[in-house]
Amino acid sequence: MSKVSIAKGMRDFSALEVSRRQYIIGQIKQVFENYAFQPLETPSMENLSTLTGKYGDEGDKLIFRVLKSGDFLKSVPDNLPRDAHKWSPMVSDKALRYDLTVPFARYIATNRNDIKLPFKRYQIQPVWRADRPQKGRFREFYQCDADVVGSDSLFQEVELMLIYATVFEKLGLKVNIRISSRSVLNGLAAYAGVADKFSTFCTILDKVDKIGEAAVMQQWIEMGVTPEAADQIRIAIGTRGENAFGAMEKFREMDKALADLRFIIQQFENNFSGKASLIFDPSLARGLDYYTGAIFEVECPDVAIGSIGGGGRYADLTGIFGVKDVPGVGISFGLDRIYLALEERNLFPVDVNDGPQILGVNFGEKADVKTFGLITQLREKGIRSEFYPQKAKLKKQLDYANQLDISYVLMMGEEEMANNSIVLKNMRTGEQKVLPQDVAEVMNAI
Amino acid sequence: MSKVSIAKGMRDFSALEVSRRQYIIGQIKQVFENYAFQPLETPSMENLSTLTGKYGDEGDKLIFRVLKSGDFLKSVPDNLPRDAHKWSPMVSDKALRYDLTVPFARYIATNRNDIKLPFKRYQIQPVWRADRPQKGRFREFYQCDADVVGSDSLFQEVELMLIYATVFEKLGLKVNIRISSRSVLNGLAAYAGVADKFSTFCTILDKVDKIGEAAVMQQWIEMGVTPEAADQIRIAIGTRGENAFGAMEKFREMDKALADLRFIIQQFENNFSGKASLIFDPSLARGLDYYTGAIFEVECPDVAIGSIGGGGRYADLTGIFGVKDVPGVGISFGLDRIYLALEERNLFPVDVNDGPQILGVNFGEKADVKTFGLITQLREKGIRSEFYPQKAKLKKQLDYANQLDISYVLMMGEEEMANNSIVLKNMRTGEQKVLPQDVAEVMNAI
Repeated sequence: MSKVSIAKGMRDFSALEVSRRQYIIGQIKQVFENYAFQPLETPSMENLSTLTGKYGDEGDKLIFRVLKSGDFLKSVPDNLPRDAHKWSPMVSDKALRYDLTVPFARYIATNRNDIKLPFKRYQIQPVWRADRPQKGRFREFYQCDADVVGSDSLFQEVELMLIYATVFEKLGLKVNIRISSRSVLNGLAAYAGVADKFSTFCTILDKVDKIGEAAVMQQWIEMGVTPEAADQIRIAIGTRGENAFGAMEKFREMDKALADLRFIIQQFENNFSGKASLIFDPSLARGLDYYTGAIFEVECPDVAIGSIGGGGRYADLTGIFGVKDVPGVGISFGLDRIYLALEERNLFPVDVNDGPQILGVNFGEKADVKTFGLITQLREKGIRSEFYPQKAKLKKQLDYANQLDISYVLMMGEEEMANNSIVLKNMRTGEQKVLPQDVAEVMNAI
Repeated sequence: MSKVSIAKGMRDFSALEVSRRQYIIGQIKQVFENYAFQPLETPSMENLSTLTGKYGDEGDKLIFRVLKSGDFLKSVPDNLPRDAHKWSPMVSDKALRYDLTVPFARYIATNRNDIKLPFKRYQIQPVWRADRPQKGRFREFYQCDADVVGSDSLFQEVELMLIYATVFEKLGLKVNIRISSRSVLNGLAAYAGVADKFSTFCTILDKVDKIGEAAVMQQWIEMGVTPEAADQIRIAIGTRGENAFGAMEKFREMDKALADLRFIIQQFENNFSGKASLIFDPSLARGLDYYTGAIFEVECPDVAIGSIGGGGRYADLTGIFGVKDVPGVGISFGLDRIYLALEERNLFPVDVNDGPQILGVNFGEKADVKTFGLITQLREKGIRSEFYPQKAKLKKQLDYANQLDISYVLMMGEEEMANNSIVLKNMRTGEQKVLPQDVAEVMNAI
């Protein structure tokens, strides 16, 4: 007998959790669709070669590879030394989806003749990563992405920012959307004289929230930035919003980027009047391997949970698959963290997990089929209803109703059988009503 | 540059396909919930030991195993001969969900102290099988299951039959639900004198639709059934409904089973008045490895597509995981085949894939931000709307509207800019209206 357990880093979702996740997904979907994004689903497994080499060395290690079926050792040469790295592509030719972006690029590449640009798709599916499980980090989790490809128009950035703001408004969560641009970072690195070490420069900047400004400056100086330049940049990246535009204007090579950011923010503000704010934050550094234009990140100031969404513009989505000139821009929602934020702020609607409203008590004999008939009619009318499957003590059945948080029970005892009536008991108030055995009467009374 | 393709046996689902699948799933979910089934989701990966040995030797071969991360060769002894069967559990310790039943049993076993019986759950998730792909058979497909565990009551069979009937009524698909019982098959095998070769007896019976009665009789005779007994059984299993009850009464050991089937059918007929029929069919043989009571299968007489659903009662779901005495009964819907049946019968609602209704034409200059503003307001009102992202020739933008099957376009040319109006064009009729630049006016006019 195996001692059974759930696999490491994996989760079961109970009815309440499924319903709450569906609630969040439903809100996101509705806004995506109002903005004319259409759903796409790609398969869980892709050819291994589609995924490897797309996420950097660290990412490659985290891809879950699927063992070939049958004799998976067949194509391993007899004399090949036992090196997992060499064996891996011989014993495995498929892998699990690691994100939604590469499969989307693969979809566009394989369907390029049928797709009309601009093409707006949203995709809400699980992805898998062989990360070491820890609090809040799982090996299977959902991504909720919206991307539009085939146009450079800044209206698309505006739309995506409005989508963020509208979704979080509907969810009741106050958010700050931070926006900046790859060109802003390029300009800062050029000013610092380390344009050739751009990615190191940005990796250091990205740590500012964790290690503080002084340590960031120290590391920049160690990589060759003069103390004076480092200090100028330090001051500039400490600014936000209108001040940040002012502070950035002294740096070269970012006039176009700043004008673009101004347009995006201006149009956002013209078209959104809710709680979310969109703020230029020159300290933002993310996704630098692929983003080429605007970059975004969403934070929830009331919950210490980190980023709950992010995205940016890329110049070339499908070049890796031989299809050139497909620029795009996209955003992602972090479902798990949004869930935790709503839970912490107590923002889930109370009726998000509607269990049954009515329980038909089973007194056996002929009352059972009569009660069952009424329950079936209630179900047909869309009332979520339960019927206790076998005769049992009334107390046991009422306990069951309470455990399932059921509001009403229907009881047909001997007396009710004799005079064609039924008792409706309100489990909250204890009140009982005697009604005719008629579905319309029951519906009126609940 | 990799020549990229989708993995074998895998599918992408376009917007129309996603929407149609969601339509079917939505109908099924709603009925499940009206019958007080609650959602459960289990992870895509289970520990390998949870899945192996549960599906027979053939099933075991079709389980997709996930390669261990990192040095997956570490626990393979140096001198172990290259035998995939021996290596497999050393290089893999996780596997992909093969069905929804074993993970459900694992869930109950791992949560047995928190679950209140009877426990009704539905689960709608993909499963993976390393089958050879062929027309209509895929390596990733959805199962839609509802099971109730913890009670022997026949009302649960009745509920599940009503769920089948109600779902297919809502989908507009006429179905026949075939019902029989493990005990009926036991009784026939006993009558044939081959109770000790029960599963062979049933496997032959199960082929009757493919190979015909004569071949079935021949094979039974080859396994030791007398020609006379085989002929009696042949006649009996050719009957249906009330005739089948009559024909079965001559066989031993099935009185209780026949009474149960009568109860289920009677209660079904008392409580359902739509197009689906529930018919006793003694030739039905399915799931004999685990079903112990009633067995069901759903067919669609108007579409040559085979079974679109099935299920049955089992005496012991979780014994494999050390938790005794959890009987249950469940049904499954075959999403892919239901999809094909609805497609063939042209039964999908036309509005199941609502793309955008309105396109805002982009004439650049200042008309763009004004038109964009109106489109944003329409989106806030729940009207699915698109905005053409950049200035382009009108014809190109109208073509785009037509390609996306958009009903209306909004156009703000120089004249409209001058007098604060906007043109609403109906793309179906060609009719144009001049309206004030006001969202309420636009909504009234569409």
